[in-house]
Amino acid sequence: MYSEEGKFSIEVCFSPLSWPLHEKSGSVVIVTDVFRATTAMCAAFQNKVKSIIPVAEIAESIAWKEKGYIVSGEREGKTLDCADFGNSPFNFMEPRLQGKTVVMNTTNGTQALKMVKEGNNHVGIGAFTNRDAICNWAIDLQLPVIIFCAGWKNRFSLEDTLFAGAAVEYLLANNDYHTMCDSAIASYELWQRAKSDPLAYIEKAAHRHRLRKMGLDDILEYSLQLNTCKCVPVLHGHELIDLNV
Amino acid sequence: MYSEEGKFSIEVCFSPLSWPLHEKSGSVVIVTDVFRATTAMCAAFQNKVKSIIPVAEIAESIAWKEKGYIVSGEREGKTLDCADFGNSPFNFMEPRLQGKTVVMNTTNGTQALKMVKEGNNHVGIGAFTNRDAICNWAIDLQLPVIIFCAGWKNRFSLEDTLFAGAAVEYLLANNDYHTMCDSAIASYELWQRAKSDPLAYIEKAAHRHRLRKMGLDDILEYSLQLNTCKCVPVLHGHELIDLNV
Repeated sequence: MYSEEGKFSIEVCFSPLSWPLHEKSGSVVIVTDVFRATTAMCAAFQNKVKSIIPVAEIAESIAWKEKGYIVSGEREGKTLDCADFGNSPFNFMEPRLQGKTVVMNTTNGTQALKMVKEGNNHVGIGAFTNRDAICNWAIDLQLPVIIFCAGWKNRFSLEDTLFAGAAVEYLLANNDYHTMCDSAIASYELWQRAKSDPLAYIEKAAHRHRLRKMGLDDILEYSLQLNTCKCVPVLHGHELIDLNV
Repeated sequence: MYSEEGKFSIEVCFSPLSWPLHEKSGSVVIVTDVFRATTAMCAAFQNKVKSIIPVAEIAESIAWKEKGYIVSGEREGKTLDCADFGNSPFNFMEPRLQGKTVVMNTTNGTQALKMVKEGNNHVGIGAFTNRDAICNWAIDLQLPVIIFCAGWKNRFSLEDTLFAGAAVEYLLANNDYHTMCDSAIASYELWQRAKSDPLAYIEKAAHRHRLRKMGLDDILEYSLQLNTCKCVPVLHGHELIDLNV
């Protein structure tokens, strides 16, 4: 399962700090920030948002806002002054957003996206809610896959790693993939520990406690459900669009 | 188990790349490089070696060799030209080494040691073979604990992480410790998956395959046994000495 040759490799990058070790052009990169950016992006596309412009700098958000765009964003879980709303997936379910472009600024997720934009890769957005859809997109491309965990302030994050493990599991079930990457193996193994009850399991995660402290833990149950949507958000120029539309 | 206040924190650093995120002075740092540097160090002290001088640069090894010291060292698993032998734990069991100082140069382990030397910390050497001994030393110091995995070329390494998990398990069984660190939690969880048969489990690790390729996998069974020695190697100036002597 882990060592066969002549197959596409799977790697997991635990945080932006490790990205230079994993980066290689001509790969499929699935970026994940389960709490909360990439889950929110999937929620947005399920709600028929037209596109999302991910930005990393607050100055960029302000500039887009001044041009009349809808802007979401937060730092440390708090809505930015320039933003219309924060990054809870629930904020992206409002009917008024349908057909619109939203500019999203987040603490970790957008930073990771900015890093992968530089390379010559196919970049998709992964969350528990669209695991099968985004993995099937990756499989169709027939290339090595790197799952890029946004992490938390450059640190390893348990929830992002569990998603990575769920994606590794799905990809390894396909005969075209193998992995020799210890972090991919660890992700898979942690997911095996968690999958029977991810919500109870994630109670152990430090980020869970951070979210609770900030009163942002209402999205946990929603965020940990597998395959509640079929969207395939991918980076197209400077925007994310849903290939499933 | 993971969240109580007023206790000493446990953190796990997955690779030298992440060290700046975890580093804090006034901590106990347990450095581990299971395959093979820190297991070899424990084997050396069990064999009554007097001290070990860890070095990171090949030029340093050559300089010590010219001064008449016994020198061990390898790069990519191959014995250095200037070295008397490589870093297999078995090389350190020869009776002629008793009472002697050995200069050790390794790919990953010494590099990690060099990084922690800079801080104002208590630095010990951990391996499966001395888990309880090194953890008891840490507990006696009554300070926060950071377990520093040497990793492999700055990458996450499954075997080092399993040792970290075994150490986290031992420390958490003591009422003075807690952890909010996701990488400590993940290490603990992976160790729970592995502990009933670490040798079979490590077959999954990429490094296992690297060692096999290089014909260096004869040390796996030895290296994965818990508590076969009682040595407590700690950094004292530029040398490692055994506090258990």
